Amino acid sequence: MEAPLPEPEPLKALIEALRRLPGVGVRSARRMAYHLLQHDISGAEQLGQALAAAVRDLRHCARCNGFSEAEVCPTCSNPKRDASVLCVVETPADQNMIESSHGYRGLYYVLMGRLAPLEGIGPQDLQFDRLLRRAGDGQVQEVILATNFTAEGETTAHYLSELLRAQGLSVSRLARGVPAGSELEYVDAGTIAWALMERRST
Amino acid sequence: MEAPLPEPEPLKALIEALRRLPGVGVRSARRMAYHLLQHDISGAEQLGQALAAAVRDLRHCARCNGFSEAEVCPTCSNPKRDASVLCVVETPADQNMIESSHGYRGLYYVLMGRLAPLEGIGPQDLQFDRLLRRAGDGQVQEVILATNFTAEGETTAHYLSELLRAQGLSVSRLARGVPAGSELEYVDAGTIAWALMERRST
Repeated sequence: MEAPLPEPEPLKALIEALRRLPGVGVRSARRMAYHLLQHDISGAEQLGQALAAAVRDLRHCARCNGFSEAEVCPTCSNPKRDASVLCVVETPADQNMIESSHGYRGLYYVLMGRLAPLEGIGPQDLQFDRLLRRAGDGQVQEVILATNFTAEGETTAHYLSELLRAQGLSVSRLARGVPAGSELEYVDAGTIAWALMERRST
Repeated sequence: MEAPLPEPEPLKALIEALRRLPGVGVRSARRMAYHLLQHDISGAEQLGQALAAAVRDLRHCARCNGFSEAEVCPTCSNPKRDASVLCVVETPADQNMIESSHGYRGLYYVLMGRLAPLEGIGPQDLQFDRLLRRAGDGQVQEVILATNFTAEGETTAHYLSELLRAQGLSVSRLARGVPAGSELEYVDAGTIAWALMERRST
């Protein structure tokens, strides 16, 4: 009697590899594999080449730790940016969001993660010493902590705040409050409580 | 003023390629790309190689149309299987489910899809002529239609049933009824109605 699932080896290997993507289980992986092989061979080739190129050509920017093709990324080497302010974010996606607000002209440091004791991610894993060296370059005056407003992001911000203040840097955190364009009725109570506590005189 | 999203080219290309996977939007694609590049470089390499190997080594079995490394897949070339029964399924995943029931010893034909007029998928796209040639090999006596019990699967079964009966083949469909192990209270009314109509004397 044979195995119940007579899948050819290359298909099995492809499904196994797709399962390593975050949020992809065996059923989705199988659906993706069938789709690529049956309906989108050129998509499969494109993805294979993009993966090889990304692994080969991308590295971490020596200054901001974000993904970069060059030793120093275009943002960090842009002379028009204000080198006296450094914004610390968890991921490149967060950096993109801040850039798209057009409200920031300083530089960035990308942690590529956040403190998560439950997952065993501590200060060493995030190379906080690298951030401290970067922030202590003599040009940076203020560090804006723009980690997420989640439990883990807040912990990270608190921890970094202590370290950076000890270096004599001025440290700030993004303001908490009511989101732009929202009606108070639909804002959660925790946000309202924060917005009250941090109210500003006009 | 620069673009708001200064993503390096290889990263952009990788995100673009990941978006071609079914069910993956730009946010998931970005999350997948960051994950692979930051936490699972070996996973990225493995996926790249698996894609290349699958595109290079897999083809459609000349008899059952499923994915295969060889001209004819191991299932179709297994002399122990009953060549007088042909089971028609929509996808290799459906074939796997039927195999894992251990209730079938015949051969398969994999449509790699189903009739879906709304998506513009007609009989030509599914190469029904190939199935008719396969079923008309002189050995096949009975064709079991095991397409899904969805509107599209039922349409496909109905359409194929007409074509195959016209060739003088005996055609059957998987039984509809109450799922094994289920309590009637929790079975949907449509299923109960079918199970009543197709009741068997004991």
